[in-house]
Amino acid sequence: MSGAPIEFYFDFSSPYGYLGAQRVDAIGGEFARPVIWRPILLGVVFKATGQSPLVGQNMRGPYAARDMARSARKLGIKFRLPEGFPFASVHACRVFYWLDGRSPEAAKDYARAVYRTAFAGGRVVADAAAAADLAAGIGHDRAHVLAGMEQAAVKERLRAETQQAMDKGVFGSPFVIVDGEPFWGNDRLAEVREWLQTGGW
Amino acid sequence: MSGAPIEFYFDFSSPYGYLGAQRVDAIGGEFARPVIWRPILLGVVFKATGQSPLVGQNMRGPYAARDMARSARKLGIKFRLPEGFPFASVHACRVFYWLDGRSPEAAKDYARAVYRTAFAGGRVVADAAAAADLAAGIGHDRAHVLAGMEQAAVKERLRAETQQAMDKGVFGSPFVIVDGEPFWGNDRLAEVREWLQTGGW
Repeated sequence: MSGAPIEFYFDFSSPYGYLGAQRVDAIGGEFARPVIWRPILLGVVFKATGQSPLVGQNMRGPYAARDMARSARKLGIKFRLPEGFPFASVHACRVFYWLDGRSPEAAKDYARAVYRTAFAGGRVVADAAAAADLAAGIGHDRAHVLAGMEQAAVKERLRAETQQAMDKGVFGSPFVIVDGEPFWGNDRLAEVREWLQTGGW
Repeated sequence: MSGAPIEFYFDFSSPYGYLGAQRVDAIGGEFARPVIWRPILLGVVFKATGQSPLVGQNMRGPYAARDMARSARKLGIKFRLPEGFPFASVHACRVFYWLDGRSPEAAKDYARAVYRTAFAGGRVVADAAAAADLAAGIGHDRAHVLAGMEQAAVKERLRAETQQAMDKGVFGSPFVIVDGEPFWGNDRLAEVREWLQTGGW
């Protein structure tokens, strides 16, 4: 793959991020663009935008729950909202960035496992033990993961990635930037594809 | 047209409502569904949802301004944000509902004129005089309009329509309900069409 990368920002506790994550690599593959996955802490972003988690909002919450399920059905993607949703995603993010320092592909595989567990399996990945268990389940050494996710550099990496995303205007999940053009929302992935196909409009 | 109607909810000060308004009747026509237009006061709805006008929001506002223009370009629809945006839409709503009591088609024509003036012409329709002028410009008697829009029954109709919309879960603009199924956003109109074509999923 030789084109400029597609940046894919998401929060692990975001159902629409889960739906987007099932498809963004295929879009990259179609246009020979690598896809860089960047989990961020949407709770930090929400403090800057004055937003709150969607499903807890009056009127918007019930619509979102219905639309998430409807969007998943349309895409043929297994989906359920786990008990305990929304969940703290900081620990899963730390495992991701610890892995990313060793192998970006291993980090992506871990992200896919978190999303699959949460939104197909219906089990949140909210605490350090659950985040480490999941890594162990796909072949990583649990003790190494638990030590790695506590490294100051890893914690700082997550803070920096969230801040850099905000500096680029990222305020939701999923959020895609391609050739400097921002696209917010799972329902805009088709537009990302068109943008790549046509060169923009 | 014999099918159950499509309900099209919008605020006159909503750019995405403007974009949706250019296309929703064609979708209705394709599936022999009448389209009922219902302007509402999104400011009242926002008090219930804790939201505020999009373009004034940190990070979300600049993205929205960019996305509105980009969405219009993609659809081939002339678009500009008028000075004084967002504007009070209560007077245009009252003219609409006064006309609607006499002729729903005349009310729709008026709504199209408001949107055209605001988002193609770049002039807000914010006060009673501007709302009446616009009606006069498409053939209505200005003095009748000014008197009509002040009728208690017309003001009450607007309050009731906004409340009924909220009771149905409407929280944004545009918002479409078809056969009980809610769709929020200009970018979901293609999905409304697919829903009508396939019978849902």
